[in-house]
Amino acid sequence: MIVLDPARLEAAMRRFAAIVGEDHVWRDDAARHGYKDAMAPRDAMSYAPRGAVAPANVEEVQAIVRVAGEMGIPLWPISRGKNFGYGGSAPRFGEVVMLDLVRMNRILEVNVEHGYVVLEPGVSFDDLYTYLVESRIPLWMSAAAHTWGSVLGNALERGVGYTPYGEHASKVCGLEVVTGTGELLRTGMGALDGARTWQMFPYGFGPSWDAAFMQSNFGIVTRMGLWLMPEPEHTLNLAMKFDRPEDLPLGVEALRPLKLDGTVQANPSFGNIIRNLAVRAPRSEYYQGTGPIPASVLDDARVRTGVGHWNFSIRLFGDKAINTINAEKVKRAFSALPYQFEVSEWNRGEPLRGSGSPTPSLAALGVVDWLGGPGGHLTFSPVSPFSGAEAWEQYTTIRGMYEDAGFDYYGGFTAGQRYLNHISMILFNRDDAEMTGRANALFSSLIETAARRGWGEYRTHTLFYDEVARTYGYNNGALRRWNETVKDAVDPHGIIAPGKMGIWPRAYREAQA
Amino acid sequence: MIVLDPARLEAAMRRFAAIVGEDHVWRDDAARHGYKDAMAPRDAMSYAPRGAVAPANVEEVQAIVRVAGEMGIPLWPISRGKNFGYGGSAPRFGEVVMLDLVRMNRILEVNVEHGYVVLEPGVSFDDLYTYLVESRIPLWMSAAAHTWGSVLGNALERGVGYTPYGEHASKVCGLEVVTGTGELLRTGMGALDGARTWQMFPYGFGPSWDAAFMQSNFGIVTRMGLWLMPEPEHTLNLAMKFDRPEDLPLGVEALRPLKLDGTVQANPSFGNIIRNLAVRAPRSEYYQGTGPIPASVLDDARVRTGVGHWNFSIRLFGDKAINTINAEKVKRAFSALPYQFEVSEWNRGEPLRGSGSPTPSLAALGVVDWLGGPGGHLTFSPVSPFSGAEAWEQYTTIRGMYEDAGFDYYGGFTAGQRYLNHISMILFNRDDAEMTGRANALFSSLIETAARRGWGEYRTHTLFYDEVARTYGYNNGALRRWNETVKDAVDPHGIIAPGKMGIWPRAYREAQA
Repeated sequence: MIVLDPARLEAAMRRFAAIVGEDHVWRDDAARHGYKDAMAPRDAMSYAPRGAVAPANVEEVQAIVRVAGEMGIPLWPISRGKNFGYGGSAPRFGEVVMLDLVRMNRILEVNVEHGYVVLEPGVSFDDLYTYLVESRIPLWMSAAAHTWGSVLGNALERGVGYTPYGEHASKVCGLEVVTGTGELLRTGMGALDGARTWQMFPYGFGPSWDAAFMQSNFGIVTRMGLWLMPEPEHTLNLAMKFDRPEDLPLGVEALRPLKLDGTVQANPSFGNIIRNLAVRAPRSEYYQGTGPIPASVLDDARVRTGVGHWNFSIRLFGDKAINTINAEKVKRAFSALPYQFEVSEWNRGEPLRGSGSPTPSLAALGVVDWLGGPGGHLTFSPVSPFSGAEAWEQYTTIRGMYEDAGFDYYGGFTAGQRYLNHISMILFNRDDAEMTGRANALFSSLIETAARRGWGEYRTHTLFYDEVARTYGYNNGALRRWNETVKDAVDPHGIIAPGKMGIWPRAYREAQA
Repeated sequence: MIVLDPARLEAAMRRFAAIVGEDHVWRDDAARHGYKDAMAPRDAMSYAPRGAVAPANVEEVQAIVRVAGEMGIPLWPISRGKNFGYGGSAPRFGEVVMLDLVRMNRILEVNVEHGYVVLEPGVSFDDLYTYLVESRIPLWMSAAAHTWGSVLGNALERGVGYTPYGEHASKVCGLEVVTGTGELLRTGMGALDGARTWQMFPYGFGPSWDAAFMQSNFGIVTRMGLWLMPEPEHTLNLAMKFDRPEDLPLGVEALRPLKLDGTVQANPSFGNIIRNLAVRAPRSEYYQGTGPIPASVLDDARVRTGVGHWNFSIRLFGDKAINTINAEKVKRAFSALPYQFEVSEWNRGEPLRGSGSPTPSLAALGVVDWLGGPGGHLTFSPVSPFSGAEAWEQYTTIRGMYEDAGFDYYGGFTAGQRYLNHISMILFNRDDAEMTGRANALFSSLIETAARRGWGEYRTHTLFYDEVARTYGYNNGALRRWNETVKDAVDPHGIIAPGKMGIWPRAYREAQA
């Protein structure tokens, strides 16, 4: 690994301070360690950066990038750094300076007529929610499970929410990007001065770049257009619990045609029993033994608490008359299963809680305390075909590996239109070195086993970027080599997030070789 | 411009022939001129290539690219070459060898369960339609107005159809690409060997590339996954005619919320009177004078033929009960206009013609004979915000320019979710040098005027690539320079479609400088 020369770093930090002011540059240990992943599997393996700088605006970002390029100081940009389960704010390795964009937190435009917002990296879901509600704007955001993270950062990492706009990456329209040479780029129609359709027409003229700046280190995104959903007249929620693990395939098959033909626009998620028990109480309330909770204990807890082995809800958003018809269609589709839907409705004008519009919440973070002690988690996210048989194979394979390694399987399948994101979490006690070692080893095995079966991850933890990137090995890693070719061209100094998603600038590749 | 050395070209053609066989390499004038745009505005300005080579499979494409790179022979790839109005099969300039992919015409997979097809560049809409119908596969394609073109080529050029899957580029999932160095690349999940979700999960791990290979010369796409729509139970068509030009803004405003909230999933198109008269008879049936047809004559023709000044239909695809409700919603939305919808329905099992599933047709090509004589056309395609006022401003501005230049305004607005593609055609007689000169001059003025108002084109004719690309001039052409930086990196020999969309390899930029 390339190590930063202390004198050069010091000189760069002084120049950064001249750009952003002394108050927005940090070198002290507390600040540095604050960027580490609070939920990493091994303390030693979540890196503290060498320092941090927090610009207030895009001109400062450009100036920082120019200095960094000139002095060879790699930057690790973050929006709000809440990418928990995938590394939080932590860089891939310590020899970088954080480029913390949290101060750039303006909502620059909300357009009700055309249904979009333009925002900076520091805007959280909470900020956006508050703004929309307080300004009585009839647009709904879609949000991640916990809402203090960045709207922009989440979309760029291809986060998923639960409304019809829940595939956030697909709702991005138009980016402003600072390049590796400090230039300002606007994608899509924004490349035309005075463009009237930057946030409306997602393609532009020539190659489209928005999706290539996602999960990417080709540039630093400083502004994003995002489509928001017009507030619906009505939502109708159909909640169901399955008693048995083996009900999953039938559920997936029932949902598949409804997602494929658009009857269900949102992204329902089949969450397993532990995902539901964990938000209620720590593990010790259910089981005091070591190793994975036995099936019989889980079944007792299921009956006692009233959760299902799989729990999911299908929420319909739209006009009441149509939701009512589609609800019957959904019920028919699931009629082969011996369960009933619990139905609830929301009408425009009623309080938003319960509507399906995400409201501020950090509840999802509580699950990391499942084991007691300082909880950590690592999220494993392979994509499954939208098929009962293949989801079942993936579930039994991965659950088996969790349990063989002594962990509870905490997971679920979130439905896209033609795929399932199978998201499971290894929950562990970070004070327990043996356990964190097992978590690490399990994670590596999961990556390898999944790849052998043709299941690729859609996202991964910072610490496992290279391992996952290597699984995308078609034609001797043609796609990774392509990405690196582009990286070297557009970021000639190799200063933007080196190693992100396994994409390393030339100097690092040579140093590693 | 860089001119190819005849001896080097001859040597390359011999090597190409060794790869594909003598029968699939052409140098004769008839073949060369056959690639020119049959509808170009100036004969001398549609270039004939120096030769052509037609590979049968991807290995041959790779071999050709390697030879081309080694010998410095630029290639101009086409799928079926039917991109009429935008240059057809013609290259940007003559000093290239066509890479004609028409022989690669396999439908490699049709997946009914997951709703996708995998196909090669030579597969036409007609081929796909025939395959689906003859195999009784309950999936519908979306198609361009005329159906002999390539499904793959049309999607890559961001062509638009009229079903809910009509924004073809957004339905692409997973590409196989031959790079400028002859390597094989698979995008998205295809980068994982044995991937199970290549055509299901559109993003992959890390930067997504599909959209950057559209309207692009970064690589040669040899295989594409494309989502198809499950056959609906029912379609319901609501057709309306407006008597007056000035009804357009109210129509646009009525449609906007219906597209925004997803009530209308397909892409309705407001087509003007001449677009409708032209498919019925040549211009001389309506008017024998020179210059644009006077408003009063048009109005007489409107009354006599029963077409509207604007004609459009909103087709609903889905379950009958839901289409019925949504039809009432559409009617209410348009109730401020003094016209009635003409309603027609289709039920699954009835003959497809009239269903909204596109059936093979070349009728749209007939319009080029509007003026009599060998018709040419040039298509001008700015994007408009989805707003009555802005569409009206764009319409009046552009129509005024057509008429000032002595041309009829033949055009319409096709609705995306948040934008309108305003597509108009300059129809001219290619034997009339004065008229083709006026057509050229008008086109350049349209580009310039539109850009000044913030209206960018989403697509343009080969001959106008540079002019349109220059309008995307934000920050001294930052996006174009970015594209060229990438181009130089991924196509170091500068051999794939030099100049496409205004993206020139380094050697050409230097030669032009």
